[in-house]
Parts: sequence; structure tokens; C-alpha cells
Amino acid sequence: MFDPASLKYDANGLIPCIAQDTDNGEVLMMAWMNADAVAQTLATGRVTYWSRSRAAFWIKGETSGHVQELVELRLDCDRDCLLARVRQTGPACHTNRRSCFYTAIHDGAEVVTADPIA
Amino acid sequence: MFDPASLKYDANGLIPCIAQDTDNGEVLMMAWMNADAVAQTLATGRVTYWSRSRAAFWIKGETSGHVQELVELRLDCDRDCLLARVRQTGPACHTNRRSCFYTAIHDGAEVVTADPIA
Repeated sequence: MFDPASLKYDANGLIPCIAQDTDNGEVLMMAWMNADAVAQTLATGRVTYWSRSRAAFWIKGETSGHVQELVELRLDCDRDCLLARVRQTGPACHTNRRSCFYTAIHDGAEVVTADPIA
Repeated sequence: MFDPASLKYDANGLIPCIAQDTDNGEVLMMAWMNADAVAQTLATGRVTYWSRSRAAFWIKGETSGHVQELVELRLDCDRDCLLARVRQTGPACHTNRRSCFYTAIHDGAEVVTADPIA
């Protein structure tokens, strides 16, 4: 059986988790989990991060309704990064854009590539 | 103009960078950059990480030939994570799998979802 303690966490007990939209492959965001958040995500099917600023569980969408339904959790070869493949309701980003990665660098300048959707 | 110093780095001066295959949207790997690696990646178009274990620049594929040609570099809303959209030659993973995220958790057990390709 998979044991969240078998992952490699940083000095703060955290592991980065990339969220990817299974509908179109878009990378939505990256946030952090601790071992309990990994366990809770797997148990509930609702992606749950650890908020470093609030020092509390962050059940994605609990307040906004913009939930991430877990389709599949993956880990990388070094066991120090996670990939959550999700069904995203609404925007993943707090700016109301679908993805947090809406800024691109083109010819040395920052370009906003997506508008808020909600 | 974009200034790599305007990104938010961790206490070690590093920022995580997710590499995504532009051909099919697959998330290939996550590794770390410092400000100089960000600048070098943009200047050369060859994705260059900072190897924490070797404490040296890691020009992806320099030894293996499995290079990552930068298509577009993106940053997230918090400026503390990067997304490199790349053309990947061969496998991205040191296990010779296309992606490092070849292990999935299905019904509480780890399942290997991809074979080495080279």
C-alpha cells in the first residue's frame, strides 16, 4: 500500500504538488502538501493543500467553490514532487483565471496570456 | 523588460520550474532554477536548471542529449513558480521514461504507468 510518509518532504515537511487539468492537459497551479494533506486528498478525492501562509489545510475550492476533483495522483521518480490530475471547477487561480501560469515572457517582456473567466 | 530578480526565490535562492511537453501537454518533470539559470534559459533557449546535489548549472541534456528546447517560459500569479513549455528530445527522466511522473496511486497502491523508451 502507498504510505504518504514514503515521499520525500522538504525541511518544512512539505512537497510540491502540480495540478493539471485532465480535460486539456493545462497546468493549473502549483501548491504544497504535507503528509496529512496527501492522505486527505487520497481519502476524500478533493485536492487538499497545506497553506504555508495560513499554516492550515487548504481544501481547494472550499470557500470559492472552485474545487479540484482528483482524477489521479502521481509521484515523480525522486518521490519529491506530486502531480495531481484533476477536474477543475471554474478558475484555479485567485485572479479568476483558469490557470495561475497566465504570464509568459516573450522577447524579454512579460505578456498576460489569459483573461479572468469569472 | 523581464528581470529574473523580480521572481520570488526560496531561502536557498531557488524557484521550482515545471517542464511541460508542448507536443501533447504532458508534464515531464520539475526541477529548480536560480536567477542565473532563469537568465541563461532565456538567453540560450536551452532549459537550464540548478542542480542542488551538484551545486552547479544543469543544462538539461548536455550529457545525455535529451535536451529541452524552450518554447515559452511562464510564471505564476505569485511569481514563485515557473512553467517551461518545451520540445523534449527523448526521455526527460533519468530512468529513460518520457516523464518523471510515471508512478500513479491507484486504489492505495503504486502503479508504474510507463516503460523506459530508450
